Amino acid sequence: MKIIILAGGEGKRMWPVQTDKCLIPFLGKPLLYHNLKKIQAALNPSEVIIVANPNIKDQISNIKNELGITGTIVLQAEPKGMADAILSAKDLIEGEVLIVNSEDILDESVYEKVLAVKADAVTVGLKRTEYFPGGYLKIGGDKVKGIVEKPGEGNEPSDLVKLVVDYFKDGKKLVEYLEKVSSETDDVYEKALDKMIADGMDVKFTKYSGVWIPLKYPWHVLDITEHLLSKIEHTISPGANVSEKAIIEGKVVIEEGARVFEGVVIKGPCYIGKNVILGNSSMVRESDLEEGVVTGFNSDITRSYIGANSWFHTNYIGDSVIEGDFGMGSGAVLANLRLDDHTIRVGEIDTNRHKLGLMAGKGSRVGVNASIMPGVRVGSNSLVGPGVVLHGDVKDNTKILVKQEYQVSDHTPALTSYDQFREKIK
Amino acid sequence: MKIIILAGGEGKRMWPVQTDKCLIPFLGKPLLYHNLKKIQAALNPSEVIIVANPNIKDQISNIKNELGITGTIVLQAEPKGMADAILSAKDLIEGEVLIVNSEDILDESVYEKVLAVKADAVTVGLKRTEYFPGGYLKIGGDKVKGIVEKPGEGNEPSDLVKLVVDYFKDGKKLVEYLEKVSSETDDVYEKALDKMIADGMDVKFTKYSGVWIPLKYPWHVLDITEHLLSKIEHTISPGANVSEKAIIEGKVVIEEGARVFEGVVIKGPCYIGKNVILGNSSMVRESDLEEGVVTGFNSDITRSYIGANSWFHTNYIGDSVIEGDFGMGSGAVLANLRLDDHTIRVGEIDTNRHKLGLMAGKGSRVGVNASIMPGVRVGSNSLVGPGVVLHGDVKDNTKILVKQEYQVSDHTPALTSYDQFREKIK
Amino acid sequence: MKIIILAGGEGKRMWPVQTDKCLIPFLGKPLLYHNLKKIQAALNPSEVIIVANPNIKDQISNIKNELGITGTIVLQAEPKGMADAILSAKDLIEGEVLIVNSEDILDESVYEKVLAVKADAVTVGLKRTEYFPGGYLKIGGDKVKGIVEKPGEGNEPSDLVKLVVDYFKDGKKLVEYLEKVSSETDDVYEKALDKMIADGMDVKFTKYSGVWIPLKYPWHVLDITEHLLSKIEHTISPGANVSEKAIIEGKVVIEEGARVFEGVVIKGPCYIGKNVILGNSSMVRESDLEEGVVTGFNSDITRSYIGANSWFHTNYIGDSVIEGDFGMGSGAVLANLRLDDHTIRVGEIDTNRHKLGLMAGKGSRVGVNASIMPGVRVGSNSLVGPGVVLHGDVKDNTKILVKQEYQVSDHTPALTSYDQFREKIK
Repeated sequence: MKIIILAGGEGKRMWPVQTDKCLIPFLGKPLLYHNLKKIQAALNPSEVIIVANPNIKDQISNIKNELGITGTIVLQAEPKGMADAILSAKDLIEGEVLIVNSEDILDESVYEKVLAVKADAVTVGLKRTEYFPGGYLKIGGDKVKGIVEKPGEGNEPSDLVKLVVDYFKDGKKLVEYLEKVSSETDDVYEKALDKMIADGMDVKFTKYSGVWIPLKYPWHVLDITEHLLSKIEHTISPGANVSEKAIIEGKVVIEEGARVFEGVVIKGPCYIGKNVILGNSSMVRESDLEEGVVTGFNSDITRSYIGANSWFHTNYIGDSVIEGDFGMGSGAVLANLRLDDHTIRVGEIDTNRHKLGLMAGKGSRVGVNASIMPGVRVGSNSLVGPGVVLHGDVKDNTKILVKQEYQVSDHTPALTSYDQFREKIK
Repeated sequence: MKIIILAGGEGKRMWPVQTDKCLIPFLGKPLLYHNLKKIQAALNPSEVIIVANPNIKDQISNIKNELGITGTIVLQAEPKGMADAILSAKDLIEGEVLIVNSEDILDESVYEKVLAVKADAVTVGLKRTEYFPGGYLKIGGDKVKGIVEKPGEGNEPSDLVKLVVDYFKDGKKLVEYLEKVSSETDDVYEKALDKMIADGMDVKFTKYSGVWIPLKYPWHVLDITEHLLSKIEHTISPGANVSEKAIIEGKVVIEEGARVFEGVVIKGPCYIGKNVILGNSSMVRESDLEEGVVTGFNSDITRSYIGANSWFHTNYIGDSVIEGDFGMGSGAVLANLRLDDHTIRVGEIDTNRHKLGLMAGKGSRVGVNASIMPGVRVGSNSLVGPGVVLHGDVKDNTKILVKQEYQVSDHTPALTSYDQFREKIK
Repeated sequence: MKIIILAGGEGKRMWPVQTDKCLIPFLGKPLLYHNLKKIQAALNPSEVIIVANPNIKDQISNIKNELGITGTIVLQAEPKGMADAILSAKDLIEGEVLIVNSEDILDESVYEKVLAVKADAVTVGLKRTEYFPGGYLKIGGDKVKGIVEKPGEGNEPSDLVKLVVDYFKDGKKLVEYLEKVSSETDDVYEKALDKMIADGMDVKFTKYSGVWIPLKYPWHVLDITEHLLSKIEHTISPGANVSEKAIIEGKVVIEEGARVFEGVVIKGPCYIGKNVILGNSSMVRESDLEEGVVTGFNSDITRSYIGANSWFHTNYIGDSVIEGDFGMGSGAVLANLRLDDHTIRVGEIDTNRHKLGLMAGKGSRVGVNASIMPGVRVGSNSLVGPGVVLHGDVKDNTKILVKQEYQVSDHTPALTSYDQFREKIK
């Protein structure tokens, strides 16, 4: 059986995060590494086909090699949707195929569940009690009767949302259908499946109620972080330097070269990457700090994802997604909680989260004593000046400074010496 | 002897604090509880009469019951002054009566001192060396010759300020005088006393130079806090959870369910109420933290009164009165000291204090990195936005946000990677 | 041999620092003390002549006495340059003389090197690989052929910058030349030397490649601090009170009366002066804290010079020069690093430093949550208000406050109780 892994998905909605979704590192390894490893453990495939955009070929190759997985990387020139991605690999497709995407987090068990069903095609229906704006399965007995895209709340044909873990007995037939269906919208793949069903092919499903974390918006990085952290084994590298006066609670991974200074508190689960420096009196809770992050003195990083080589100095960072190469001046704060009872919106979208901080692209900077409001996005290589109270998004490569007006006057203090002052206030 | 406790006093000058003065909790108990307990210890009265406004009848009843004091609660429909309050209870008054108010903090000894004097009426003269804008006793030998309201500095008829701990041999006579004196101002009670003296009744006084703390303005809450804290016995509840890595100095009460995390420093005297959470590296000095307060990471609370269910996160709170249900974003600061040599004014009034922070009503919020100047009052359910530098009072139910102007420009940093940066700054 | 020490140099470029350069205290002693002690160790002179301005006569006398050095203090009425300074002492000059200035930091060895050379006059040439805008030696063999002031990069007559450690075999001759040369600019001394050479006197030099730290601009105080700290011996006074829960690393001097509270971290080399108070959880690194400094709670002072009786409270102070009697409100930050890759300018001058914070004159104050940008100077007795983001210098005796505009509106929070809130955000 050939396993086709779709790693070329567009990430427009992920802005300000610009890293290809499958390459975003978690716990020191790209997301694709985590997902491939899971497939490897479940299916031990002799070969995989990975469809990716040309820019990231080398990175994907490295991941494959690191895991010792044999396979081919097929390049998709432009991100033109899932059908196009599969067709990019059509010369390699024959016999049984399993189509999966590279970003969704799923339980390992899902692969076996799909393969346990015998049919011409098998897909996965995720049980949902709340409405989700995706494709729903229309079912009859153990068969799929059709796919309904975003039916709207109350009109769901079942409680099963279609995931992309799709088995086809005859890969060549899939290719044939994908080539003959045409669509002006981005749903060629779904239409091809519908057509198969209409033509009387035997399409079945398996119900799945395990973990499912999609990566569509930048705050989903927090969900993946939380999930992956929940799986870690407590491991402190012998090459890490952890002060005896640091306090570590719960499960924590601390990588080689990391330095944890006196008075630091780490409340697991946490991932502390290679060469990370946790400065005196810093606190890190339930967070992923990738390679080379430096917290300086007295920072508080809570439930956040901090990309490589970011540095902090006496800051609060809560529920935030920082892509990397980020810097933050002393006293700057990322608010993560509205002072009223509302959930946090990002642009037009209600995240349904009561806690969400900043999402920042690579290379951005925040000045001393700046305040960034919950759910704000700051683009790559942008700069939020000192003292700014930032309520809205900042584009890539943009500098925003506050213009203050001053009242300047002569000043003749009555007490110039601190001794006098100290005496007076006693 | 009947003891009449006046608990219906108006609290307009207490704004933004809205809780009835006698119900403000200190060390987990309402002020009235502390004062009744003192009277109980001094006089062990068989019965008391408490005059209160109708809204707080139940709370007063609970206090009475908790102390096992028998008594009647008389409702005063509107707060129309002291004479009206006493007359509300006129049906219950006969024989000897002792009139006290429910809010002033006095030494237990004052009650015995009054009762030791034999006369038709006895009042208390507080010895004062500095002028105080209250009623002064005009005396002759051991007799009171009259009461002079706010005589003005230099015109005091004696060095004795009249307190409200007043004994009358014949309560019915007091009622009679109160009913026959009429006044357009708020001084019927004082006029009635003057009339008694004019009519030749034997009115005496006792000199008192012990503790006297009135509760007239919100910053007086700090004086009461300081006084009551000075009396505590060191007690850590077995139901409290105090980290071995916390540091406790001096006398501290820590109640059941409280949690004190690593690196916390408590410098007594302090009261840490039920279920209070002192987050890592917080410092609390000489303060009263009522039930359910949460300090978050790294806050510094000094000489303050913090009402129930308030939460903080990396803040400085000095010499402040927080009524409760208060929230404060990371990095917000309550300044408590002028940078010149002046004492702090609240509205029109010079408090004569060199240190005084915020006074905040229930349910108010302060955004991240906001700065509130010494002596400011913020009303109930109001919100001071992030980054605001607040110099004046904020009314109840009011939101104040800073409007910043920005200078936005393209930004092309020369160094986008932190590695380059780190190299350069070495 | 007579040693003439020039201590009357003008310090205009040192603004906002106003203390006479030779009297700025380092490690508890004036700079002149350190330099005289070095001369004493190298030369053990029987007598010195110190030329100073009349205002500081007593302080200089004290320094001399403390070191047990015999000598005369000559007053220079106005600071009219080096030649005038020497001529102020002309009545005392005869025989061999050595001219040195009182502020440059040099290795002890330089004095012996000069005296080892036999000639009519000997000066010191500091080997420099980078261009320096000072006087260069034009040399021929072991002889000085002339002095070229600021030749401009690429036009240096040698790689030797002339320092002021100058020997003259016949002091009377020096006086004679100084009196006969006239100049409208500030270079009479250099012209006199040139004239000696032109007249055929035997003027030689010695090459020197040791330490040389001039004190011309206020940030040079940091260079001197760093140098002197590098020489300290670890000494904790028995009269200091250091908590067992403080952490001390590296070499540290802690003077009598100093108090170091729990959780403090000191990373040497550091000088902690008399009666300094390091409040809980403060961190001090590679800094000089003169007598009576108070850090309050949780401050971070790094690579800085902090003059006497300055106080801090939860601040970041990096690479800063604080003259003394300074105060800083909670949350105020001294930024010390540009968020781009540029070096820091002070006024018109590029300091070539990547890290530099504030330079503040005596008696200045900074309000809570103020932010001061790298390389800013604040004058004596000036006040930077709360919340100000300060990009430029502030003159002496000046107050600068931010004028904020507000948006005020009614506010009716849906959740007034924290319990509801806490429930919701769970």
